[in-house]
Amino acid sequence: MISMLNEIKEHRSIRKYTDKQIPKDVMDSILNAAIRASNTGNMQVYSIVVTTDSKIKDELAPTHFNQPMVKNAPAILTFCADFNRFNKWCRQRNAEPGYDNFLSFLTAAIDAIIAAQNACIEAQANGLGICYLGTAIYNADKIIDILNLPKGVIPVTAVTIGYPAETPELTDRLPVKAVVHYEKYNDFTTEDINKLYEEKEAREDNKQFIEENNKETLAQVFTDVRYPLANNEHFSEVLFGVLKKQGFLK
Amino acid sequence: MISMLNEIKEHRSIRKYTDKQIPKDVMDSILNAAIRASNTGNMQVYSIVVTTDSKIKDELAPTHFNQPMVKNAPAILTFCADFNRFNKWCRQRNAEPGYDNFLSFLTAAIDAIIAAQNACIEAQANGLGICYLGTAIYNADKIIDILNLPKGVIPVTAVTIGYPAETPELTDRLPVKAVVHYEKYNDFTTEDINKLYEEKEAREDNKQFIEENNKETLAQVFTDVRYPLANNEHFSEVLFGVLKKQGFLK
Repeated sequence: MISMLNEIKEHRSIRKYTDKQIPKDVMDSILNAAIRASNTGNMQVYSIVVTTDSKIKDELAPTHFNQPMVKNAPAILTFCADFNRFNKWCRQRNAEPGYDNFLSFLTAAIDAIIAAQNACIEAQANGLGICYLGTAIYNADKIIDILNLPKGVIPVTAVTIGYPAETPELTDRLPVKAVVHYEKYNDFTTEDINKLYEEKEAREDNKQFIEENNKETLAQVFTDVRYPLANNEHFSEVLFGVLKKQGFLK
Repeated sequence: MISMLNEIKEHRSIRKYTDKQIPKDVMDSILNAAIRASNTGNMQVYSIVVTTDSKIKDELAPTHFNQPMVKNAPAILTFCADFNRFNKWCRQRNAEPGYDNFLSFLTAAIDAIIAAQNACIEAQANGLGICYLGTAIYNADKIIDILNLPKGVIPVTAVTIGYPAETPELTDRLPVKAVVHYEKYNDFTTEDINKLYEEKEAREDNKQFIEENNKETLAQVFTDVRYPLANNEHFSEVLFGVLKKQGFLK
């Protein structure tokens, strides 16, 4: 394998930041990088809310389950699926937008995420650290209220950005063949699964994780503690409510 | 603004490729770059199907509305939200997965897209060109059949990759302030919208586009020709069917 782009190879999520603020020219570069990303039909149906005000960060913190980096990071970028601007433009141009549906939401959400990853890579190219906040979709309803997101706009992810005050180890990954299939999908046998997860399960940190959580297996930490069914079902309902309220479902 | 990472700044979608195949070490680097991407809880609930076989590319072509680059590109990468492997692992480890819901789908879809953009940037760092196929979600049902995607797996985007046989102009973008909001969302006035779209509407290529499509405004080309309501509603229904069939909706 040839050498990988440094911003990708050396990526680790950074959850502790120094006090140093992000200079305007660096932030501009990050935002412009986001905007250069591929998007559907060049409609640019996404938006980025850049929050640096500590009062608003305090309001956002609980929506991200009070993960400490939300208050600690100099900036939070909230990436949103956004048909608001596009719909307004259509209506001002004698065109009737037909984007109040699930396909349109998913299209816009995908474009927002591609833009987010461009921003993250550009941030890292400038010596900054980032951490995705997957929680943005859990509490999308509350983020909508805090950031004044109008109808047509739904947060799909958020990212904390700042200068790293830590250098954590690279996170382990499953072998490539756990993720990559050639030509068509080759489904896994019981034995395949055992082999693919062998290394992960043998790691000391994961063994400790099982013990701390008082579980029998690493998988149980996920199903019973970190991502349990009841939470997933609750937040799925919240999300459907948000899709309706923001005009993507009837 | 400081200088942007070249792979981001110089990105244009490439739709024509030379005959040159992608060397294995380059493809391995692209796939490993995808896998290094941030993902939820390090569950890696996504998969990548790498298609290079021309027979399968021929089958895929109609699902991407016969865009010529699907057959022309040496490789098509289909990025999927994938709880199949993770669920299998859970069940083999005495853990009951609770991921048959919309939140889990969206989580996995977001992770798949972040991985996709890493792959695209790494591909470009190696001199390759890429083009996203947003059509992957339109015909997800048919792609599932062609690629043998099991329950728990849904394609969310696809990317064609190959050595560029064209160097198109950089695509125009709206001004940054059309996309970026500081602190909270600042909704647009009629005048704001007029100003933000002024440059785009003044472009000769867009004026020609209106004429070719026999429309009054550029917005009408989107609402009436490219992304009309009836299509969006039809494919939204298809998508809900796919979510049910693949086990993310009851």
